[in-house]
Amino acid sequence: MSTASGTTTTDGDTSTKGAYVTSGEEFTRDTAYIEDRITTDGRHGWPVEPGRYRLVAARACPWAHRSIIVRRLLGLEGVISQGITGPTHDRRSWTFDLDEGGRDPVLGYERLQEAYLARFPDYPKGITVPAVVEESSGKVVTNDFPQITLDLSTQWREHHRPGAPDLYPEALREEMDAVMRHVYTEINNGVYRCGFAGSQESYEKAYDRLFAALDVVSERLGTRRYLMGDTITEADVRLYTTLVRFDPVYHGHFKCNRQKLTEMPVLWAYARDLFQTPGFGDTTDFAHIKAHYYVVHEDINPTGVVPKGPDLAGWLTPHGREEMGGSPFGAGTAPGPVAAGEEVPADHTPLG
Amino acid sequence: MSTASGTTTTDGDTSTKGAYVTSGEEFTRDTAYIEDRITTDGRHGWPVEPGRYRLVAARACPWAHRSIIVRRLLGLEGVISQGITGPTHDRRSWTFDLDEGGRDPVLGYERLQEAYLARFPDYPKGITVPAVVEESSGKVVTNDFPQITLDLSTQWREHHRPGAPDLYPEALREEMDAVMRHVYTEINNGVYRCGFAGSQESYEKAYDRLFAALDVVSERLGTRRYLMGDTITEADVRLYTTLVRFDPVYHGHFKCNRQKLTEMPVLWAYARDLFQTPGFGDTTDFAHIKAHYYVVHEDINPTGVVPKGPDLAGWLTPHGREEMGGSPFGAGTAPGPVAAGEEVPADHTPLG
Repeated sequence: MSTASGTTTTDGDTSTKGAYVTSGEEFTRDTAYIEDRITTDGRHGWPVEPGRYRLVAARACPWAHRSIIVRRLLGLEGVISQGITGPTHDRRSWTFDLDEGGRDPVLGYERLQEAYLARFPDYPKGITVPAVVEESSGKVVTNDFPQITLDLSTQWREHHRPGAPDLYPEALREEMDAVMRHVYTEINNGVYRCGFAGSQESYEKAYDRLFAALDVVSERLGTRRYLMGDTITEADVRLYTTLVRFDPVYHGHFKCNRQKLTEMPVLWAYARDLFQTPGFGDTTDFAHIKAHYYVVHEDINPTGVVPKGPDLAGWLTPHGREEMGGSPFGAGTAPGPVAAGEEVPADHTPLG
Repeated sequence: MSTASGTTTTDGDTSTKGAYVTSGEEFTRDTAYIEDRITTDGRHGWPVEPGRYRLVAARACPWAHRSIIVRRLLGLEGVISQGITGPTHDRRSWTFDLDEGGRDPVLGYERLQEAYLARFPDYPKGITVPAVVEESSGKVVTNDFPQITLDLSTQWREHHRPGAPDLYPEALREEMDAVMRHVYTEINNGVYRCGFAGSQESYEKAYDRLFAALDVVSERLGTRRYLMGDTITEADVRLYTTLVRFDPVYHGHFKCNRQKLTEMPVLWAYARDLFQTPGFGDTTDFAHIKAHYYVVHEDINPTGVVPKGPDLAGWLTPHGREEMGGSPFGAGTAPGPVAAGEEVPADHTPLG
């Protein structure tokens, strides 16, 4: 299928390409991103500077959703602007089809691809979100999603809102890096390994590996409110973005169907706890999530029909995890309301 | 899509053809079957006669599963023989690929199509199961599935086992026909209307219609143990064959995903009650069910990968419906063990 679509990368839904499944092959994610970083000391040529950068994200995409959540939890809305693409894309690029006239109001672009080409005229790879773009030059700075969020936490600290949580605490980093590595390889990417498996055998191996990992995190979360203990961290952000997509897309579309999330009691309560925490549920757009996967992956859903379910009312039910102690923001505070103009449409969420 | 596959009928999974979804169109089942009946008085030329007929069925297919259940509940195993096809089929026919040498041991056929052609050399329509075939001539007698099971109940009565239930009681027929019509149009066929919808709009209408109907039967079953009251009838057989396929195939493959069956408490308890009743669970082959839908419907699952889930252990959990009173066989008795040679393989069922 790579040949038919003229693509050679298989980096999943952050990217734009035609074929997702390669017959007979296990799914492998292309993880070579643009590795520039925006840092306090500007050592890559991109210093921290309020008003200089724009985060371009898709609410549909779990890797981009991380950055949307972290930016909001840290209160960086006034410092780093945000552009949101539509939920679907063509083979060329994610597009700004939600914006008036189909152009990002700050960058003036119709397609995110333009920011990649502005910096690398022969950019050979898929166009991925999240991407941080320099507003003045319109050039992409980085699309290295695991680093983007950590840098928001560590490099932009002096611009965080008062009461912002420390999502990547020094004292926990060694353990946290290991937890996040497990969450990434086994769960965040594990669902894709199921969905894009090119053979029955690779699918079944991927399924076993995914649910074994979900059992591991479920056990861990049976005795602690959040992955790293009593307060939320980046590790929770990373697990959340997969869990919240589990029943709407991964369960059916990717055949991750041993149970629904709603049938895994610890993980379901944990996911609701986060959903009901400012920054998580209020940045979750179920309509974009479903539209993205079911429309873009034509090779696994050729009809393009988007499921009407699941019923989302359960996300608002009591989760009971306050009894475990802890509190999401610890000594800090929750972020205020979602910034004006950044709200998820009321009919895309059970928060309505 | 009809043109591409060279087929013009869209009669769902009883039939053999290449395309199931017609773009832009609502799914419509072709219901013109061979209407001959086997009757006590032989008025169609096919009298009731032990040893004369063979029921050809696929365990995968819900319409054929009805006849497998009813034959066993009534104890007709020694009177009407049974041939089982494999779970998948090509565009020509269901095939006897489970049998030694790939031939039905009684009919000698490789393909069920041969029985249709033996009677109608130019048979123009899809080859469907269940089909009743005359053993001596090898000719198909009927494939009229709603009539086949009713005739097993009413025409073959003198050959029923002692203690066999009356699955189509005279006194209930008027109400029962209405219930079964609702179950057929809204639920049995309703899941196909979702899965084979050719547009987003027809899918959404089909989804609403299906779940509205499930809510209706759920309400009915909230106050009575079985659809018609205290004992099982053909109406329960017909609802069961759809419910037992709901989570393994209809929920994901057909996008019937408001809830899983496991999330609809009344229907889930009712389905487990039946599953644990001799004749129901012991004729249910989850491996055949999943293989059939996910392999045959290439136009909605082009990878052909068959989901490993769902976990089936829940089917064996207590259902609690004995408290409602009633008993499946009323004044009669349950059938004995499954006839030798007709068992569902142990690794295809949680009954193991």
